[in-house]
Amino acid sequence: MAIAVRLQYNRSVSNPSRRRRDPEQTRTAIIAALLDAVHDGDFAPTTKALAQRAGVSERSIFVHFPTRDDLLIAATDLQSERVEALIVTADTSAPLGERVDAVVRQSAAIFALQRNPRVLGLLESSSVPAVDERMRLTDQRIRDGLGHMFTPELTRDGELDEELLDLVDATASWPLRHHLVERRSASEDDSSKALRRALLLLLS
Amino acid sequence: MAIAVRLQYNRSVSNPSRRRRDPEQTRTAIIAALLDAVHDGDFAPTTKALAQRAGVSERSIFVHFPTRDDLLIAATDLQSERVEALIVTADTSAPLGERVDAVVRQSAAIFALQRNPRVLGLLESSSVPAVDERMRLTDQRIRDGLGHMFTPELTRDGELDEELLDLVDATASWPLRHHLVERRSASEDDSSKALRRALLLLLS
Repeated sequence: MAIAVRLQYNRSVSNPSRRRRDPEQTRTAIIAALLDAVHDGDFAPTTKALAQRAGVSERSIFVHFPTRDDLLIAATDLQSERVEALIVTADTSAPLGERVDAVVRQSAAIFALQRNPRVLGLLESSSVPAVDERMRLTDQRIRDGLGHMFTPELTRDGELDEELLDLVDATASWPLRHHLVERRSASEDDSSKALRRALLLLLS
Repeated sequence: MAIAVRLQYNRSVSNPSRRRRDPEQTRTAIIAALLDAVHDGDFAPTTKALAQRAGVSERSIFVHFPTRDDLLIAATDLQSERVEALIVTADTSAPLGERVDAVVRQSAAIFALQRNPRVLGLLESSSVPAVDERMRLTDQRIRDGLGHMFTPELTRDGELDEELLDLVDATASWPLRHHLVERRSASEDDSSKALRRALLLLLS
Protein backbone atom coordinates (compact mmCIF):
# COMPACT_ATOMS: atom_id res chain seq x y z
CA MET A 1 0.00 0.00 0.00
CA ALA A 2 1.38 3.34 -0.91
CA ILE A 3 -0.82 6.14 0.28
CA ALA A 4 0.75 8.88 -1.71
CA VAL A 5 2.51 9.90 -4.81
CA ARG A 6 4.48 6.82 -5.50
CA LEU A 7 5.28 6.85 -9.14
CA GLN A 8 5.34 3.19 -10.07
CA TYR A 9 8.09 2.93 -12.57
CA ASN A 10 7.19 -0.14 -14.52
CA ARG A 11 10.35 -0.94 -16.39
CA SER A 12 8.93 -3.92 -18.25
CA VAL A 13 7.77 -1.63 -21.04
CA SER A 14 9.33 -2.68 -24.31
CA ASN A 15 7.64 -0.69 -27.08
CA PRO A 16 10.12 0.58 -29.59
CA SER A 17 10.31 4.35 -30.01
CA ARG A 18 7.71 5.50 -32.48
CA ARG A 19 9.68 8.38 -33.90
CA ARG A 20 12.98 10.13 -33.85
CA ARG A 21 12.97 13.47 -32.13
CA ASP A 22 15.54 15.74 -30.62
CA PRO A 23 16.24 14.28 -27.17
CA GLU A 24 15.82 17.65 -25.50
CA GLN A 25 12.41 18.07 -27.16
CA THR A 26 11.34 14.64 -25.99
CA ARG A 27 12.49 15.39 -22.48
CA THR A 28 10.61 18.69 -22.40
CA ALA A 29 7.47 17.09 -23.86
CA ILE A 30 7.44 14.49 -21.08
CA ILE A 31 7.84 17.09 -18.36
CA ALA A 32 5.16 19.29 -19.89
CA ALA A 33 2.83 16.29 -20.17
CA LEU A 34 3.18 15.59 -16.45
CA LEU A 35 2.48 19.22 -15.58
CA ASP A 36 -0.53 19.25 -17.91
CA ALA A 37 -1.94 16.10 -16.32
CA VAL A 38 -1.57 17.48 -12.82
CA HIS A 39 -2.99 20.82 -13.94
CA ASP A 40 -6.06 18.92 -15.18
CA GLY A 41 -6.46 17.29 -11.77
CA ASP A 42 -4.94 13.93 -12.69
CA PHE A 43 -2.50 13.52 -9.82
CA ALA A 44 -1.73 9.93 -10.76
CA PRO A 45 -1.15 9.66 -14.50
CA THR A 46 0.14 6.35 -15.79
CA THR A 47 3.31 6.26 -17.88
CA LYS A 48 1.08 5.20 -20.75
CA ALA A 49 -1.11 8.28 -20.38
CA LEU A 50 1.95 10.50 -20.07
CA ALA A 51 3.52 9.01 -23.18
CA GLN A 52 0.30 9.63 -25.11
CA ARG A 53 0.04 13.21 -23.92
CA ALA A 54 3.68 13.85 -24.78
CA GLY A 55 3.56 12.02 -28.13
CA VAL A 56 6.53 9.87 -27.13
CA SER A 57 7.04 6.20 -26.41
CA GLU A 58 6.55 4.94 -22.89
CA ARG A 59 10.10 3.62 -22.99
CA SER A 60 11.53 7.07 -23.64
CA ILE A 61 10.14 8.22 -20.30
CA PHE A 62 12.42 5.75 -18.53
CA VAL A 63 15.34 6.65 -20.80
CA HIS A 64 15.09 10.32 -19.90
CA PHE A 65 14.03 9.85 -16.28
CA PRO A 66 15.59 6.78 -14.70
CA THR A 67 13.65 7.32 -11.46
CA ARG A 68 10.35 8.93 -10.58
CA ASP A 69 12.18 11.55 -8.54
CA ASP A 70 14.14 12.58 -11.64
CA LEU A 71 10.89 13.34 -13.42
CA LEU A 72 9.36 15.11 -10.44
CA ILE A 73 12.43 17.27 -9.97
CA ALA A 74 12.52 18.20 -13.66
CA ALA A 75 8.81 19.05 -13.54
CA THR A 76 9.36 21.21 -10.47
CA ASP A 77 12.16 23.07 -12.29
CA LEU A 78 10.01 23.81 -15.34
CA GLN A 79 7.02 24.78 -13.24
CA SER A 80 9.18 27.07 -11.10
CA GLU A 81 10.56 28.82 -14.19
CA ARG A 82 7.04 29.34 -15.50
CA VAL A 83 5.90 30.78 -12.18
CA GLU A 84 8.92 33.05 -11.84
CA ALA A 85 8.29 34.44 -15.33
CA LEU A 86 5.01 35.84 -13.96
CA ILE A 87 6.54 37.82 -11.11
CA VAL A 88 5.80 41.49 -11.71
CA THR A 89 7.63 44.57 -10.55
CA ALA A 90 6.22 48.01 -10.02
CA ASP A 91 7.60 51.42 -9.26
CA THR A 92 7.37 51.86 -5.50
CA SER A 93 6.38 55.47 -6.09
CA ALA A 94 3.10 54.37 -7.72
CA PRO A 95 0.01 54.70 -5.52
CA LEU A 96 -0.62 51.75 -3.16
CA GLY A 97 -3.84 50.83 -4.97
CA GLU A 98 -2.01 50.45 -8.28
CA ARG A 99 0.70 48.29 -6.77
CA VAL A 100 -1.91 46.13 -5.03
CA ASP A 101 -3.72 45.72 -8.35
CA ALA A 102 -0.49 44.57 -10.00
CA VAL A 103 0.10 42.05 -7.24
CA VAL A 104 -3.46 40.76 -7.40
CA ARG A 105 -3.07 40.23 -11.15
CA GLN A 106 0.21 38.43 -10.51
CA SER A 107 -1.49 36.22 -7.93
CA ALA A 108 -4.27 35.33 -10.39
CA ALA A 109 -1.78 34.45 -13.10
CA ILE A 110 0.38 32.33 -10.82
CA PHE A 111 -2.65 30.61 -9.32
CA ALA A 112 -3.88 29.65 -12.78
CA LEU A 113 -0.63 27.68 -13.11
CA GLN A 114 -0.30 26.49 -9.55
CA ARG A 115 -3.80 25.59 -8.37
CA ASN A 116 -3.26 21.82 -8.54
CA PRO A 117 0.49 21.41 -9.07
CA ARG A 118 1.25 23.13 -5.79
CA VAL A 119 -0.78 20.57 -3.80
CA LEU A 120 1.32 17.79 -5.31
CA GLY A 121 4.46 19.84 -4.78
CA LEU A 122 3.70 20.39 -1.10
CA LEU A 123 3.21 16.68 -0.67
CA GLU A 124 6.29 15.69 -2.68
CA SER A 125 8.46 18.27 -0.96
CA SER A 126 8.20 16.27 2.25
CA SER A 127 10.10 13.39 0.68
CA VAL A 128 12.11 14.82 -2.24
CA PRO A 129 14.55 17.47 -0.99
CA ALA A 130 15.29 18.87 -4.46
CA VAL A 131 11.57 19.54 -5.02
CA ASP A 132 11.37 21.25 -1.65
CA GLU A 133 14.42 23.43 -2.35
CA ARG A 134 13.26 24.51 -5.79
CA MET A 135 9.78 25.38 -4.52
CA ARG A 136 11.27 27.36 -1.66
CA LEU A 137 13.47 29.33 -4.03
CA THR A 138 10.46 30.39 -6.11
CA ASP A 139 8.47 31.22 -2.99
CA GLN A 140 11.38 33.31 -1.77
CA ARG A 141 11.54 35.19 -5.08
CA ILE A 142 7.83 35.94 -4.91
CA ARG A 143 8.23 37.19 -1.33
CA ASP A 144 11.27 39.30 -2.29
CA GLY A 145 9.26 40.88 -5.10
CA LEU A 146 6.46 41.78 -2.69
CA GLY A 147 8.97 43.12 -0.19
CA HIS A 148 10.34 45.39 -2.87
CA MET A 149 6.99 46.59 -4.21
CA PHE A 150 5.63 47.44 -0.79
CA THR A 151 8.81 48.82 0.72
CA PRO A 152 7.15 52.12 1.68
CA GLU A 153 4.33 50.40 3.57
CA LEU A 154 6.49 47.65 5.09
CA THR A 155 9.24 49.85 6.46
CA ARG A 156 8.83 51.09 10.01
CA ASP A 157 11.60 53.14 11.60
CA GLY A 158 13.94 52.15 8.79
CA GLU A 159 13.37 48.43 9.30
CA LEU A 160 11.46 45.97 7.14
CA ASP A 161 8.44 44.59 9.00
CA GLU A 162 9.09 40.91 8.19
CA GLU A 163 5.96 39.70 9.95
CA LEU A 164 3.74 41.99 7.90
CA LEU A 165 5.57 40.92 4.74
CA ASP A 166 4.86 37.29 5.65
CA LEU A 167 1.17 38.11 5.96
CA VAL A 168 1.14 40.02 2.68
CA ASP A 169 3.01 37.16 1.03
CA ALA A 170 0.59 34.49 2.28
CA THR A 171 -2.36 36.67 1.29
CA ALA A 172 -1.05 37.43 -2.20
CA SER A 173 0.23 33.92 -2.87
CA TRP A 174 -1.32 30.50 -3.26
CA PRO A 175 -2.79 29.85 0.22
CA LEU A 176 -5.56 32.40 0.44
CA ARG A 177 -6.67 32.18 -3.18
CA HIS A 178 -6.65 28.39 -3.01
CA HIS A 179 -8.93 28.54 0.03
CA LEU A 180 -11.32 31.00 -1.61
CA VAL A 181 -11.49 29.10 -4.89
CA GLU A 182 -11.53 25.55 -3.50
CA ARG A 183 -13.56 26.07 -0.36
CA ARG A 184 -15.82 28.96 -1.27
CA SER A 185 -16.02 28.23 -4.99
CA ALA A 186 -15.11 31.86 -5.58
CA SER A 187 -14.57 32.97 -9.18
CA GLU A 188 -11.23 34.43 -10.20
CA ASP A 189 -12.72 37.91 -10.10
CA ASP A 190 -14.31 37.49 -6.70
CA SER A 191 -11.11 36.02 -5.28
CA SER A 192 -9.13 38.91 -6.70
CA LYS A 193 -11.59 41.39 -5.21
CA ALA A 194 -11.36 39.76 -1.78
CA LEU A 195 -7.56 39.55 -1.91
CA ARG A 196 -7.32 43.19 -2.93
CA ARG A 197 -9.40 44.13 0.08
CA ALA A 198 -7.27 42.02 2.44
CA LEU A 199 -4.03 43.49 1.07
CA LEU A 200 -5.29 47.03 1.47
CA LEU A 201 -6.36 46.31 5.06
CA LEU A 202 -2.93 44.83 5.82
CA LEU A 203 -0.94 47.59 4.14
CA SER A 204 -2.90 50.74 4.94
CA MET B 1 3.40 4.98 -13.11
CA ALA B 2 1.03 6.46 -10.61
CA ILE B 3 2.04 9.95 -9.68
CA ALA B 4 -0.12 10.28 -6.64
CA VAL B 5 -1.79 8.67 -3.76
CA ARG B 6 -2.52 5.33 -5.22
CA LEU B 7 -2.86 2.97 -2.32
CA GLN B 8 -1.60 -0.30 -3.70
CA TYR B 9 -3.84 -2.83 -2.15
CA ASN B 10 -1.75 -5.97 -2.28
CA ARG B 11 -4.23 -8.72 -1.59
CA SER B 12 -1.69 -11.53 -1.65
CA VAL B 13 -1.06 -11.08 2.06
CA SER B 14 -1.77 -14.27 3.92
CA ASN B 15 -0.50 -13.82 7.48
CA PRO B 16 -2.97 -15.16 9.97
CA SER B 17 -4.36 -12.70 12.50
CA ARG B 18 -2.04 -12.39 15.42
CA ARG B 19 -4.67 -11.75 18.04
CA ARG B 20 -8.35 -11.55 18.65
CA ARG B 21 -9.70 -8.11 19.21
CA ASP B 22 -13.04 -6.40 19.04
CA PRO B 23 -13.60 -5.70 15.31
CA GLU B 24 -14.51 -2.09 16.02
CA GLN B 25 -11.25 -1.63 17.96
CA THR B 26 -9.26 -3.14 15.12
CA ARG B 27 -10.97 -0.89 12.64
CA THR B 28 -10.30 2.21 14.72
CA ALA B 29 -6.67 1.18 15.30
CA ILE B 30 -6.09 0.91 11.54
CA ILE B 31 -7.62 4.31 10.85
CA ALA B 32 -5.65 5.92 13.66
CA ALA B 33 -2.45 4.29 12.38
CA LEU B 34 -2.96 5.83 8.96
CA LEU B 35 -3.59 9.26 10.47
CA ASP B 36 -0.52 8.90 12.69
CA ALA B 37 1.66 7.96 9.72
CA VAL B 38 0.47 10.93 7.68
CA HIS B 39 0.84 13.20 10.72
CA ASP B 40 4.47 12.07 10.92
CA GLY B 41 5.00 13.01 7.28
CA ASP B 42 4.78 9.48 5.87
CA PHE B 43 2.31 10.09 3.06
CA ALA B 44 2.86 6.63 1.61
CA PRO B 45 2.82 4.03 4.38
CA THR B 46 2.85 0.40 3.32
CA THR B 47 0.14 -1.93 4.61
CA LYS B 48 2.89 -3.69 6.53
CA ALA B 49 3.89 -0.47 8.30
CA LEU B 50 0.26 0.37 9.00
CA ALA B 51 -0.38 -3.08 10.44
CA GLN B 52 2.64 -2.71 12.71
CA ARG B 53 1.58 0.72 13.89
CA ALA B 54 -1.94 -0.51 14.57
CA GLY B 55 -0.86 -3.77 16.16
CA VAL B 56 -3.06 -5.74 13.78
CA SER B 57 -2.41 -8.21 10.99
CA GLU B 58 -1.92 -6.90 7.49
CA ARG B 59 -4.80 -9.11 6.40
CA SER B 60 -7.21 -7.41 8.78
CA ILE B 61 -6.66 -4.13 6.94
CA PHE B 62 -8.18 -5.68 3.82
CA VAL B 63 -10.96 -7.30 5.83
CA HIS B 64 -12.03 -3.97 7.29
CA PHE B 65 -11.30 -1.85 4.25
CA PRO B 66 -11.93 -3.69 1.00
CA THR B 67 -10.66 -0.75 -1.06
CA ARG B 68 -8.20 2.05 -0.44
CA ASP B 69 -11.00 4.58 -0.74
CA ASP B 70 -12.82 2.87 2.13
CA LEU B 71 -9.82 3.45 4.35
CA LEU B 72 -9.29 7.01 3.18
CA ILE B 73 -12.93 7.89 3.73
CA ALA B 74 -12.91 6.36 7.22
CA ALA B 75 -9.72 8.27 8.05
CA THR B 76 -11.28 11.49 6.81
CA ASP B 77 -14.31 10.87 9.05
CA LEU B 78 -12.20 10.33 12.16
CA GLN B 79 -9.93 13.27 11.39
CA SER B 80 -12.95 15.51 10.79
CA GLU B 81 -14.46 14.55 14.14
CA ARG B 82 -11.19 15.31 15.88
CA VAL B 83 -10.96 18.70 14.21
CA GLU B 84 -14.57 19.58 14.94
CA ALA B 85 -14.05 18.77 18.62
CA LEU B 86 -11.58 21.68 18.71
CA ILE B 87 -13.99 24.33 17.43
CA VAL B 88 -14.41 26.91 20.17
CA THR B 89 -17.26 29.26 20.88
CA ALA B 90 -17.10 32.60 22.63
CA ASP B 91 -19.58 35.11 23.87
CA THR B 92 -19.93 37.73 21.15
CA SER B 93 -20.09 40.37 23.87
CA ALA B 94 -16.47 39.67 24.87
CA PRO B 95 -13.92 42.22 23.63
CA LEU B 96 -12.64 41.63 20.09
CA GLY B 97 -9.11 40.92 21.34
CA GLU B 98 -10.35 38.09 23.57
CA ARG B 99 -12.34 36.51 20.77
CA VAL B 100 -9.40 36.80 18.39
CA ASP B 101 -7.19 35.11 21.01
CA ALA B 102 -9.67 32.25 21.30
CA VAL B 103 -9.72 31.82 17.53
CA VAL B 104 -5.94 31.93 17.29
CA ARG B 105 -5.71 29.20 19.94
CA GLN B 106 -8.27 27.17 17.99
CA SER B 107 -6.25 27.62 14.82
CA ALA B 108 -3.07 26.42 16.56
CA ALA B 109 -4.83 23.34 17.94
CA ILE B 110 -6.44 22.44 14.63
CA PHE B 111 -3.19 23.03 12.74
CA ALA B 112 -1.34 20.67 15.09
CA LEU B 113 -3.72 17.97 13.84
CA GLN B 114 -4.02 19.09 10.25
CA ARG B 115 -0.59 20.26 9.14
CA ASN B 116 0.17 17.20 7.01
CA PRO B 117 -3.17 15.36 6.78
CA ARG B 118 -4.79 18.31 5.08
CA VAL B 119 -2.28 18.25 2.21
CA LEU B 120 -3.17 14.63 1.54
CA GLY B 121 -6.86 15.44 1.99
CA LEU B 122 -6.72 18.26 -0.55
CA LEU B 123 -5.10 15.93 -3.02
CA GLU B 124 -7.46 13.01 -2.34
CA SER B 125 -10.52 15.23 -2.42
CA SER B 126 -9.99 15.73 -6.13
CA SER B 127 -10.66 12.05 -6.81
CA VAL B 128 -12.70 10.73 -3.85
CA PRO B 129 -15.99 12.65 -3.57
CA ALA B 130 -16.74 11.37 -0.04
CA VAL B 131 -13.41 12.76 1.21
CA ASP B 132 -14.16 16.08 -0.44
CA GLU B 133 -17.66 16.28 1.06
CA ARG B 134 -16.54 15.43 4.58
CA MET B 135 -13.70 17.95 4.47
CA ARG B 136 -16.05 20.61 3.17
CA LEU B 137 -18.49 19.96 6.00
CA THR B 138 -15.78 20.49 8.61
CA ASP B 139 -14.53 23.60 6.83
CA GLN B 140 -18.08 24.91 6.76
CA ARG B 141 -18.46 24.31 10.50
CA ILE B 142 -15.24 26.18 11.22
CA ARG B 143 -16.43 29.07 9.05
CA ASP B 144 -19.86 29.07 10.73
CA GLY B 145 -18.18 29.25 14.13
CA LEU B 146 -16.12 32.23 13.04
CA GLY B 147 -19.17 33.89 11.57
CA HIS B 148 -20.91 33.54 14.91
CA MET B 149 -17.99 34.73 17.05
CA PHE B 150 -17.37 37.81 14.96
CA THR B 151 -20.99 38.70 14.21
CA PRO B 152 -20.59 42.24 15.59
CA GLU B 153 -17.59 42.99 13.36
CA LEU B 154 -18.90 41.15 10.29
CA THR B 155 -22.35 42.69 10.18
CA ARG B 156 -22.75 45.83 8.12
CA ASP B 157 -26.19 47.38 7.79
CA GLY B 158 -27.76 44.24 9.19
CA GLU B 159 -26.07 41.98 6.64
CA LEU B 160 -23.25 39.51 7.11
CA ASP B 161 -20.17 40.57 5.12
CA GLU B 162 -19.50 37.16 3.53
CA GLU B 163 -16.36 38.32 1.75
CA LEU B 164 -14.80 39.53 4.99
CA LEU B 165 -15.82 36.28 6.69
CA ASP B 166 -14.07 34.36 3.89
CA LEU B 167 -10.90 36.36 4.53
CA VAL B 168 -11.12 35.84 8.29
CA ASP B 169 -11.77 32.14 7.71
CA ALA B 170 -8.77 31.68 5.41
CA THR B 171 -6.60 33.67 7.81
CA ALA B 172 -7.68 31.75 10.91
CA SER B 173 -7.67 28.35 9.23
CA TRP B 174 -5.07 26.08 7.69
CA PRO B 175 -3.86 28.13 4.67
CA LEU B 176 -2.10 31.05 6.32
CA ARG B 177 -0.59 29.12 9.19
CA HIS B 178 0.60 26.41 6.81
CA HIS B 179 2.36 29.05 4.73
CA LEU B 180 3.99 30.67 7.77
CA VAL B 181 5.13 27.39 9.28
CA GLU B 182 6.16 25.60 6.08
CA ARG B 183 7.54 28.50 4.10
CA ARG B 184 8.84 30.82 6.78
CA SER B 185 9.68 28.16 9.36
CA ALA B 186 7.71 30.21 11.86
CA SER B 187 7.23 28.74 15.33
CA GLU B 188 3.73 28.12 16.64
CA ASP B 189 3.99 31.24 18.79
CA ASP B 190 5.25 33.45 15.99
CA SER B 191 2.57 32.16 13.64
CA SER B 192 -0.08 32.82 16.26
CA LYS B 193 1.25 36.31 16.81
CA ALA B 194 1.19 37.06 13.08
CA LEU B 195 -2.29 35.61 12.62
CA ARG B 196 -3.58 37.61 15.58
CA ARG B 197 -2.27 40.75 13.95
CA ALA B 198 -3.85 39.89 10.59
CA LEU B 199 -7.22 39.11 12.18
CA LEU B 200 -7.22 42.39 14.10
CA LEU B 201 -6.39 44.32 10.92
CA LEU B 202 -9.22 42.56 9.07
CA LEU B 203 -11.80 42.96 11.81
CA SER B 204 -11.04 46.38 13.25
